[in-house]
Amino acid sequence: MINKSRIKKAQDRMKQQGIDAYLILTHDDYIYFFGEDRYQPRAVIPAQGMPIIVTFSGEEEEVRKSLGVEDVRIFGSVGQQIKDVVQIMRGMVGDKDKLKIGVQMWFGTPAFLLNMFQKANPIVDVVDIASVMDDLRMVKDENEIKLIQHAADIAVIGMKTAVKTLKAGITENDVAAEVEYAMRKAGGHGVATPVYVNSGIRSGWLHGTASDKIIEHGDLVVLDLVPRYKGYCANLCRTFVIGKPNNKHIDMYETYKEAQSAAINVLRPGKKIREIDAVAKSVYTENGYEEFYVAGIGHSIGLSFEETPAPTIHPGDSGITLCENMVMTVGHPVLSVPGTGGVRLEDTFHIKSNETIPITEFPSELELNHN
Amino acid sequence: MINKSRIKKAQDRMKQQGIDAYLILTHDDYIYFFGEDRYQPRAVIPAQGMPIIVTFSGEEEEVRKSLGVEDVRIFGSVGQQIKDVVQIMRGMVGDKDKLKIGVQMWFGTPAFLLNMFQKANPIVDVVDIASVMDDLRMVKDENEIKLIQHAADIAVIGMKTAVKTLKAGITENDVAAEVEYAMRKAGGHGVATPVYVNSGIRSGWLHGTASDKIIEHGDLVVLDLVPRYKGYCANLCRTFVIGKPNNKHIDMYETYKEAQSAAINVLRPGKKIREIDAVAKSVYTENGYEEFYVAGIGHSIGLSFEETPAPTIHPGDSGITLCENMVMTVGHPVLSVPGTGGVRLEDTFHIKSNETIPITEFPSELELNHN
Repeated sequence: MINKSRIKKAQDRMKQQGIDAYLILTHDDYIYFFGEDRYQPRAVIPAQGMPIIVTFSGEEEEVRKSLGVEDVRIFGSVGQQIKDVVQIMRGMVGDKDKLKIGVQMWFGTPAFLLNMFQKANPIVDVVDIASVMDDLRMVKDENEIKLIQHAADIAVIGMKTAVKTLKAGITENDVAAEVEYAMRKAGGHGVATPVYVNSGIRSGWLHGTASDKIIEHGDLVVLDLVPRYKGYCANLCRTFVIGKPNNKHIDMYETYKEAQSAAINVLRPGKKIREIDAVAKSVYTENGYEEFYVAGIGHSIGLSFEETPAPTIHPGDSGITLCENMVMTVGHPVLSVPGTGGVRLEDTFHIKSNETIPITEFPSELELNHN
Repeated sequence: MINKSRIKKAQDRMKQQGIDAYLILTHDDYIYFFGEDRYQPRAVIPAQGMPIIVTFSGEEEEVRKSLGVEDVRIFGSVGQQIKDVVQIMRGMVGDKDKLKIGVQMWFGTPAFLLNMFQKANPIVDVVDIASVMDDLRMVKDENEIKLIQHAADIAVIGMKTAVKTLKAGITENDVAAEVEYAMRKAGGHGVATPVYVNSGIRSGWLHGTASDKIIEHGDLVVLDLVPRYKGYCANLCRTFVIGKPNNKHIDMYETYKEAQSAAINVLRPGKKIREIDAVAKSVYTENGYEEFYVAGIGHSIGLSFEETPAPTIHPGDSGITLCENMVMTVGHPVLSVPGTGGVRLEDTFHIKSNETIPITEFPSELELNHN
């Protein structure tokens, strides 16, 4: 059902900032306001008045029923849908010269869609809606934390499956298949980023995929899981070695673990993101890995796999101050040493007033324990 | 390995059009030119001279080795990566006032990345690289068709699994789990769009997902599969009814099948996309479904799940003329009748000079046959 209190909060901020409406084009904010998902989410929340949903004719009845929203426009083609939005904008313009329309500028908004919208709407100035939405979405409510916890439990099931599956002689893709399947069977609704199994030289990649590379004895393997549950994500990453780790593996692993622990210890309300980074970096420096530190040790997570603060993408987010009920990951970038490979450990945390609670609970051990 | 002949063709077109360089930010064109994938593909192809790859320090050695490209820039943060690109642009500007830089404007290019790039590069005018790339990518070579065929074979394995799994009492997500797993085990590299299992009222959706909805007796179920193999996609969609179909189901199904067949019969070199649509629409009209026709009966497919011509997204693509060695799907939009649900059948075809060859081969039957 539609969440009126969230809409009210967004509208208050829009009025303060002189934004006439928010044009929703992405799943995360659609779910945030309307509590359900469409494959192609399209809605307009005006600064004042009722939200308008633009949907395909075949979905209209269902949308009306499940949301209780009166004003549902229907469309018969993507071209028509843009025209519907144009019509809504014209209806809103009144005696103004221009409308200021907020749009989310993140991974889910393709550049071409924004271009098409701007061309079709010469009366519109498009602005980034982050100034409205970041404030709302950074702090999670009780139900959101429950959903993230649910996603985290699914990630743990995925990681247990990975541990059982991992061995020399199979491909990265074989491992991804088992992990993906286990997470779906555990009730997961797919993944927010592809299951990532990076072995050997590929463990040193900044990000990952799962390829046909055969996992070999002595390989470092980085596994990163971001399952979804009802739109919400949790992030769990572990690194294992196939067989006995060598001294370099152990040194890198212990460094990462120590850096992650140090960062978690200062993950408290009132701390700035850059302070968390400084603490993690100092551990790298003490252990002789300073040159390999990639800034942005953690990020917020929720309806998006990475949301504000997301300092690896927006370095300016380093100035954001943590507060109660934020959900943050710690352990985002890989410690990658050319010639050896990479190590990463990432977990998701709920920041409370006096303590930080792990949402993803899984042992951190470099050696595989198949039992 | 790097594909020099494709780079040469792109450079020739760039010179003709006065584009100084193509900044690659997406997987499809990165694979197209460099024959391998990175999680975060970043490269610059200047109109003249050697391509430049911008990659993370931990990936440098591997990239140099696998591609044989001399000029590999490295970066240590996303901020740094943008600076690297800025530096490349400055090095290219010479005595010009402005550089004209092509960027792909499609689903894989988020609006914010383009904004960041434009802000960081005031000397740059960004243009859509489609004018260069569409020409190249619309026509597939022999190896590309082999890879699409491989993806199609994986889709067929997925659909066989769906048929075996589908029954009343399980969730859409349960079906998706089995299908996804079967396609991975068959060597697929994940999916280009999420496995889509739309049942009952949800079968009438324009697009799909797989939800926790329980599949019920009498439901129409639309399954759409777009697996990837080495970057390449194939598209296979079928509709089944759980139990005995009623007359309305049969009428809609026969209409769709007839419309798809009619469209396939005119899928020949020299035909325009709008002619294919007209033929399909006339079948809807004859059967009393005209009001439910959604324009854009097919689209091109390859390294992207939907690429030019893609008339449901760009209505202007209806004017494109088909030619030999294009790979097109037929059966893209759903026939959705409010109150009943939806029906779709989509297949992928190789257009040859004198015939059109199905790449996805799977029977079209409304009733489930579990044997």
